[in-house]
Amino acid sequence: MTFSERYDAHLTAITAALAACFGKEKRGFAFDGLLEAMDYSLMAGGKRVRPVLTLEFCRVCGGDVTAALDVACAVELLHTYSLIHDDLPCMDNDDLRRGKPTNHKVFGECTAVLAGDALQAEAFGKILRCALPAERRAACAEALADAAGIDGICGGQFMDMMGGSQRLSEEELSELQGRKTGSLLLAACRMGVLAAGGSPAQEDAACRYGAALGAAFQIRDDMLDALSTEQELGKPIGSDAANGKTTFLSLWGAEKCAAAVDRLTRAAIDAAKEFPESDFLCELARYLAGRGV
Amino acid sequence: MTFSERYDAHLTAITAALAACFGKEKRGFAFDGLLEAMDYSLMAGGKRVRPVLTLEFCRVCGGDVTAALDVACAVELLHTYSLIHDDLPCMDNDDLRRGKPTNHKVFGECTAVLAGDALQAEAFGKILRCALPAERRAACAEALADAAGIDGICGGQFMDMMGGSQRLSEEELSELQGRKTGSLLLAACRMGVLAAGGSPAQEDAACRYGAALGAAFQIRDDMLDALSTEQELGKPIGSDAANGKTTFLSLWGAEKCAAAVDRLTRAAIDAAKEFPESDFLCELARYLAGRGV
Repeated sequence: MTFSERYDAHLTAITAALAACFGKEKRGFAFDGLLEAMDYSLMAGGKRVRPVLTLEFCRVCGGDVTAALDVACAVELLHTYSLIHDDLPCMDNDDLRRGKPTNHKVFGECTAVLAGDALQAEAFGKILRCALPAERRAACAEALADAAGIDGICGGQFMDMMGGSQRLSEEELSELQGRKTGSLLLAACRMGVLAAGGSPAQEDAACRYGAALGAAFQIRDDMLDALSTEQELGKPIGSDAANGKTTFLSLWGAEKCAAAVDRLTRAAIDAAKEFPESDFLCELARYLAGRGV
Repeated sequence: MTFSERYDAHLTAITAALAACFGKEKRGFAFDGLLEAMDYSLMAGGKRVRPVLTLEFCRVCGGDVTAALDVACAVELLHTYSLIHDDLPCMDNDDLRRGKPTNHKVFGECTAVLAGDALQAEAFGKILRCALPAERRAACAEALADAAGIDGICGGQFMDMMGGSQRLSEEELSELQGRKTGSLLLAACRMGVLAAGGSPAQEDAACRYGAALGAAFQIRDDMLDALSTEQELGKPIGSDAANGKTTFLSLWGAEKCAAAVDRLTRAAIDAAKEFPESDFLCELARYLAGRGV
């Protein structure tokens, strides 16, 4: 199977499972509006990198990919909740997400807060109610909690909000991005191993892959953001393009960023090689390092 | 041990465990503000009925109450998150909670949303990281997810917000209150049994106790709200005191409400009697039925 064939196979399974989460339910009494809001953001598209990672790590550990589908969906549910809350007026106050109006723009702020809250609860529910043995369910849900809480997404988002336009050090920015973005990418990899009942050595390799991939992803994101803004504005690359926020680009410049992405991509590939079938994971790391605007 | 001695013993253990959750941590870099906001609402007081129920059901099932303390704390963490989000400007827009300024009044809306989000994640984390066997951790976390999601708190709060001042039927109001308030009271009881590794029959009795207690609690709450408002305003009891919202009092009147509280309290006591040591649970049901304004 080629890289794109496997990506498509994972994606097809994930998309169908996500569509079945809330899109078909009807409960009546002004209640469908909540399910509709949850479904709207969940089905708004995206590459689904996180659940693809979960399924692939399950597969390379010899696990049952179909049984891990609920775990993969849980990762995307949690990611979707964090995007809805990040977009709120009291946070980033964004009107658009992936070219579509943000959740609160369509459903109002009250529903958007509740849709996010419910997506977080249902992410844990999805794992805890699935058919895997109790030990694996508990391990996967614990990994999700690690990524979601104060040492993960919430802590990272808080640092991002409070940091404002103050200049951060390299360590501070790495910590912020590691919490806000890295933690769930790492958890997605780790949960694939845990769903398959993989070994501690496999869990460790998955964490190293996820950490390197997450860091590379973030630096590349900073570069792409700047590139697209500067193309629009006609400014030279490397200028202050992120509304005064510290980015890896503003700290390091374009050349050092490109070198860091290369180094981190090689580290991810090294970690992937600890699995017998590593082709897809290596290719994915290369693809994410090279993706265009 | 008398009722109040046992309540105090549970409460002392819970208060100390909750105070240790976020009150003593320091992480640095604008990060302490999030922990401070979480701790502020968590330590704002209250009777801690839910975690007391968890510890007591664990005890009457012969479980290790100390080992269940993390599970009890998780219930209070989840309850606290739901109060913080309910108070937000886009929800009930409340300035005061238990006589103190609400979370967003002290820390701002952005931090209040994140403090709630993080409290939900840490509630699951608390259970999943505790020392109980994996099967019990998974069962307790699943019960919490049931209470937190669309069939629980989020669904109930959504119905409450969307219902506005429209007149609800008895069934609709029961469903709304069952989700918004009943689900977590029931889960608190159920999780005590699950933490102790109790039998399905014990889990069933705990659910019946929790459901009856939750329903009685809510009707009594409607009566007390009306009483306190009407005392302030000098209006007769039973008049429209809840800003046009349907309440059990507005549907039934005071006499039928009092009869329902009696009936539900007897049902809770019947369920409690299935446990060998039921004194505390029976007394608690009577106490909650009779509590004053």
